[in-house]
Amino acid sequence: MTRKQLIQQIKKKKSYLCVGLDTDLDKIPKHLLKYKQPIVEFNKQIIEATQDLCVAYKPNIAFYEQFGAKGFEFLEKTLSYIPENIFTIADAKRGDIGNTSKMYAKAFFETLNFDSITVAPYMGSDSIKPFLDYKNKWTIILGLTSNTGSQDFQFLKSNKKPLYQQVIETAMQYGNEGNTMFVIGATQEKSIKKIRTFCPEHFFLVPGVGAQGGSLEKISEFGLNQDIGLLVNSARNIIYASNGKDFAEKARDEAQKIQQEMQAILKRKQLI
Amino acid sequence: MTRKQLIQQIKKKKSYLCVGLDTDLDKIPKHLLKYKQPIVEFNKQIIEATQDLCVAYKPNIAFYEQFGAKGFEFLEKTLSYIPENIFTIADAKRGDIGNTSKMYAKAFFETLNFDSITVAPYMGSDSIKPFLDYKNKWTIILGLTSNTGSQDFQFLKSNKKPLYQQVIETAMQYGNEGNTMFVIGATQEKSIKKIRTFCPEHFFLVPGVGAQGGSLEKISEFGLNQDIGLLVNSARNIIYASNGKDFAEKARDEAQKIQQEMQAILKRKQLI
Repeated sequence: MTRKQLIQQIKKKKSYLCVGLDTDLDKIPKHLLKYKQPIVEFNKQIIEATQDLCVAYKPNIAFYEQFGAKGFEFLEKTLSYIPENIFTIADAKRGDIGNTSKMYAKAFFETLNFDSITVAPYMGSDSIKPFLDYKNKWTIILGLTSNTGSQDFQFLKSNKKPLYQQVIETAMQYGNEGNTMFVIGATQEKSIKKIRTFCPEHFFLVPGVGAQGGSLEKISEFGLNQDIGLLVNSARNIIYASNGKDFAEKARDEAQKIQQEMQAILKRKQLI
Repeated sequence: MTRKQLIQQIKKKKSYLCVGLDTDLDKIPKHLLKYKQPIVEFNKQIIEATQDLCVAYKPNIAFYEQFGAKGFEFLEKTLSYIPENIFTIADAKRGDIGNTSKMYAKAFFETLNFDSITVAPYMGSDSIKPFLDYKNKWTIILGLTSNTGSQDFQFLKSNKKPLYQQVIETAMQYGNEGNTMFVIGATQEKSIKKIRTFCPEHFFLVPGVGAQGGSLEKISEFGLNQDIGLLVNSARNIIYASNGKDFAEKARDEAQKIQQEMQAILKRKQLI
């Protein structure tokens, strides 16, 4: 998917919502356990109920990989239920030496045909460039994460700049705003404002709204740019809104609440 | 596997060699393509030919994941050919927020039953601790890597210390020398000496010998400690020593050459 197509979808749906498909067998409604592949059935119903309200789906690969070979089947089937015009994100946080990252790129961009993948920056340029070689695919690089452990290294200062800024500024040079995004955690509201000063054009994928405590209002205030430039992910709040037979309906209600808040923000900002 | 058991194996085999199972369909001998699962057959024969000469096998997960669900089957079958007393390393470089890293730990320590996994440090403590919760399993954290991209961030200095040192010193506190190792690239010979000054006890997993240009002699000189403390990985040099029908035999010859060099070094250092 191109940047232009993504922006068109956002404007059409008045939504920059990404639904996180972090599907956990222990948390899905019990009545689904009678299906042969409960995780796939759950995802299918969540996708059917929310596809007009969101512009992206983001399965976290760990939730599937825990089942080994079967998990990849679950992932393949889940992807088959996602309409073509919705952006797909493999939240995989991969990264290795060049010839190995090439294999990961093949796994997620060819075998599974995701539109994008999240990658870890520690190993630098040659660990990321093989992903950027794919046309109309996106590489989403960890910038500043939402977890408590982000404090360990991401704020270490060198040349008066925190590591996350060094990472973003350097990685901006690997590709361009048409094939690179950055993960910026929603719990890092103050930093989003600062990051926009040195990274004005790129899309940010912002996880951590809802269960992890980030505020949609503040993230949007600081993060939106003239091309929208934001994908805000919500997983647990939406997909586990109910664990009864009404789970898909309740997930829809929750997604709609967020979409309407986004619509109001986009109007106020005169972006739609 | 415990630290004590690992050291015993090294002393018994007079080898700290790890064979990297980075098995690539394009590089294996053509006569294996007639098998239903050529990658599994290749690995089986490599394992049979080298198992008395090495103490560890390290499949790089990217090489398997590129095939999706099937790749995990290849991995499961490969593991079934590795004898119990050989240390297995999932070279996966995973890492995510706490509740997600827990799923990766489950994938590699339970579903696939590896002895260890490599992880990326960028997201800090909670991204790594779920792996450390497993008894007799090992977490191998990226310290200083062997690729050119390591120059991008790993040498950035804060408080007069390069990032890789901050990472190693901080991550040493997450666990202990009985459950944590560090990846130190073989191309970073000078740095290995320095790293031993602030990290004397931990095992280092050293990839990059051979094809990537690192020297076994220098790595051993700087990296060995009183408990050996080194696993040196070689992949391409061994597994692709020949692409004819004699590939397993030639792989054995290559592994033996390295094992004998290691034996001489261990004797000279009075470690065996």
